[in-house]
Amino acid sequence: MNGAQALIRTLVGAGVDVCFANPGTSEMHFVAALDDVPEMRAVLTLFEGVATGAADGYARMAGGPAVTLLHLGPGMGNGLANLHNARRGKAPLLNVVGDHARSHKRLDAPLESDIDAVAGTVSTWVRRSLSPADVAADAAEAVAAIATGGIATLILPADVSWEDGAEVAEPMAARPLPHVAPSVVEDVASVVRSGDSVVLFLGGDVMAAADGQLAAAQVAAGTGARLVSETFPARAARGAGLPDLHRLPYPPEMAMAALEGTTHLVLAGTTAPVHFFGYPGVPGQPVPEGCSVHVLSLPGEDGVAAMQALASAVAPDATAEVAEFERPELPTGELTPRTMAAVIGALLPENAIVVDEALTSGVGLTEMTSAGPRHDWLSLTGGAIGDGLPMALGAAVACPDRPVIGIQADGSAMYTISALWSYAREQADIITIICDNGSYAILEHELQKVGAASDGERARKLLDLGGPGLDFVSIAQGMGVPASRATTAEELAEQLQKALAEPGPHLIDAVLR
Amino acid sequence: MNGAQALIRTLVGAGVDVCFANPGTSEMHFVAALDDVPEMRAVLTLFEGVATGAADGYARMAGGPAVTLLHLGPGMGNGLANLHNARRGKAPLLNVVGDHARSHKRLDAPLESDIDAVAGTVSTWVRRSLSPADVAADAAEAVAAIATGGIATLILPADVSWEDGAEVAEPMAARPLPHVAPSVVEDVASVVRSGDSVVLFLGGDVMAAADGQLAAAQVAAGTGARLVSETFPARAARGAGLPDLHRLPYPPEMAMAALEGTTHLVLAGTTAPVHFFGYPGVPGQPVPEGCSVHVLSLPGEDGVAAMQALASAVAPDATAEVAEFERPELPTGELTPRTMAAVIGALLPENAIVVDEALTSGVGLTEMTSAGPRHDWLSLTGGAIGDGLPMALGAAVACPDRPVIGIQADGSAMYTISALWSYAREQADIITIICDNGSYAILEHELQKVGAASDGERARKLLDLGGPGLDFVSIAQGMGVPASRATTAEELAEQLQKALAEPGPHLIDAVLR
Repeated sequence: MNGAQALIRTLVGAGVDVCFANPGTSEMHFVAALDDVPEMRAVLTLFEGVATGAADGYARMAGGPAVTLLHLGPGMGNGLANLHNARRGKAPLLNVVGDHARSHKRLDAPLESDIDAVAGTVSTWVRRSLSPADVAADAAEAVAAIATGGIATLILPADVSWEDGAEVAEPMAARPLPHVAPSVVEDVASVVRSGDSVVLFLGGDVMAAADGQLAAAQVAAGTGARLVSETFPARAARGAGLPDLHRLPYPPEMAMAALEGTTHLVLAGTTAPVHFFGYPGVPGQPVPEGCSVHVLSLPGEDGVAAMQALASAVAPDATAEVAEFERPELPTGELTPRTMAAVIGALLPENAIVVDEALTSGVGLTEMTSAGPRHDWLSLTGGAIGDGLPMALGAAVACPDRPVIGIQADGSAMYTISALWSYAREQADIITIICDNGSYAILEHELQKVGAASDGERARKLLDLGGPGLDFVSIAQGMGVPASRATTAEELAEQLQKALAEPGPHLIDAVLR
Repeated sequence: MNGAQALIRTLVGAGVDVCFANPGTSEMHFVAALDDVPEMRAVLTLFEGVATGAADGYARMAGGPAVTLLHLGPGMGNGLANLHNARRGKAPLLNVVGDHARSHKRLDAPLESDIDAVAGTVSTWVRRSLSPADVAADAAEAVAAIATGGIATLILPADVSWEDGAEVAEPMAARPLPHVAPSVVEDVASVVRSGDSVVLFLGGDVMAAADGQLAAAQVAAGTGARLVSETFPARAARGAGLPDLHRLPYPPEMAMAALEGTTHLVLAGTTAPVHFFGYPGVPGQPVPEGCSVHVLSLPGEDGVAAMQALASAVAPDATAEVAEFERPELPTGELTPRTMAAVIGALLPENAIVVDEALTSGVGLTEMTSAGPRHDWLSLTGGAIGDGLPMALGAAVACPDRPVIGIQADGSAMYTISALWSYAREQADIITIICDNGSYAILEHELQKVGAASDGERARKLLDLGGPGLDFVSIAQGMGVPASRATTAEELAEQLQKALAEPGPHLIDAVLR
């Protein structure tokens, strides 16, 4: 058995059975070995950033890692932005990065580069397998290392892949999530009982699980503590029957206003909030001066159990306040970010996965869907745009029975547009709604916000996606995805209903005013 | 004057007046400052890999650097693959990577990552400007540091950009290319006079300059030495009046055959050849055992002057053998890689820039153009596919009066397909010919070559771009580039003639059999 075969069999044995692949020459034995191990599903992408973003979306929905197959250092580079997002969202993810054969490494061939250095910037675990006899054990260790989140990168020399002498390794037992110490729960309990102005700041596993949110809402009901969600949770359970959680707003001024007067901020599943960017004359974080910050649970700990323990301690008899089912009416007339949101809210199917990279066009989107049918919501965790289209692919592969709706800003869509081709190839049930405002709207806003002295013609031109306009219908059709254009709320509703009724991918170019 | 204004004015003063930009929030003051310095031309790209690839193509044709504007670590990651190609081709290139404000850096905001580590893998010069008072001097030093090739990366905190207190810095004198020591030329002279089997292996500046090639051909004519070009020169002057140089073939067996029997290999402007990849049972380099390798000039030295000195020493009266003008007839019938090459050879305009990322479809392409009108040829230097479309943009910006013809493999085109939008926006005179064979043909070939045991259905499916086919006409039109499809040699000829007669970008999807 060669190294590639042993590697793939070991991964499958450890429960990693989906590979998002963008292979090159140095990965050919891995590709060949896929035929020998039909349990590994290989999904071809046309660009490494699609592979890594898909693995991010897959991990968020499957709760465990997929493997990416990347081509040497430049392939790792192409995948880096979405690995950054996965890192920020604590998604478990395994990269296999092909490299030159060991004998070829010293020759400084054209594709030679420092893979290890690049991998180190996003990975919690990096190893170069140096022998076919070791590669399976390395893979088993990699999978175990990311059981509770994090990125592992296994660098695989081509000859370690092709040489015989490898054997399958047993899966390693993964450590379960560590529990928060009871004394921590007791300390936080006395804080929330204090009668001061307390905010429970929720993220990570607490936002992903209905149980975590319900326990937090029970604490709120029993103590008067307020609940605020992190701005961009990796995964949030949402809809009727769950608390209607307000997110910390993105704009610094609004985030500061949302936390104004808070004397105790309790972190559950996440870290203390900071603004996305620094701005002239604005503090870097929204936590008010004098507010004390307490940690109930950090990412990588069992935050749901900690929140439940807190609820039992401080509000054993309280009833969580949850949203009753309600959704907006189908709007008519002009298509604006708000009417787009209302159409989506009115038609959101049961058990959907919403992938949100709407950015500035997302106004009203969470509000219009918060009391609708239960769904999961995936956000852009690391701010590196271009994760939306790939994440939807990964989510669809992880949950083939659930509809996926991607709400995608136009500028960001172009970063990883070839994801659409993989949608068509896999016939994935993904509906992509492009928020087509013809500009980097978020940057126009930012240009003003940073207090830039000039916003003259040349600067504005750099933020304008018109001239020429992007025709997403044509682009999508060119990659095999049926597509249509909506210019009114009625058209969007009609096209979304039609797309929901048909299997396979669809794209709707929502031209916003 | 704020840091951004001083930075841009300093760059313009140092002769760097083109910026390929993909900005985000942290670069807004740079964007705003563009209005204050109209001498800096800003070209917007929709993806950082297009910006860096364009800067690579620009540098090869302009002979000096453009600046890229990239958005934090993920933006640098998106640009990394084409920075790798630029590094391998020794192109001068300056990155300005925006980062968080200094005060924001310690807060571990969502976009925080280790930019310096990623930059270090491709850059010969890296600096983080820590004060508005320093940024201009840093920029001047960066430009001087890459005068003879290499990548400089200036990391620019947002507040260093926006704070006042900056002043323009004078350009620093750039060191000219060092000359090769006369004793080296004498040593090589005695080698080529030896009567043994000598190959002059040409690359870098020697291939880029007609004078370098002509001096080498003079040496060959006077001594019987053979001339071989590196496989993928960054830039090669070509056409009638220049020597018809054979390239070292890409496949290892053919490369070894091309150098068989050579007893002395003389390097001029490049390093000793190695195979792109290692293969089971194949040596890593094509240089025969027992062949001694001599260095006339390395990259970064004045190889043209050294070759001229060598010619004066060993063949002062010899006449270089050069190609007489000749081009193929326009072919008819089936469109194959060979008839495609013949059409291009028959219609190649005067003074064109050919950007070659045809990969497997490039068979016959160099042969059919070698004796045609004078042109420059840009190759993929680092093997990281996806440089072709962006390089053509950069070449067109560097040389607005010259026609640019990009010959582009289909799979590779998808890596940076949004370059087409920048073509349309700039109305660049670029004709893109997509070699549409519906597969990663190079990988199908490699799958066999690595000796992969199986090439069953699932492996083959990973190398197949059909299902769905990519409709490049639709994709190009969706980005504002006029496009057509050619399925016969006649259609390709007709469409190419039409495209050559019209200004602005055109794309031809050449469906190859």
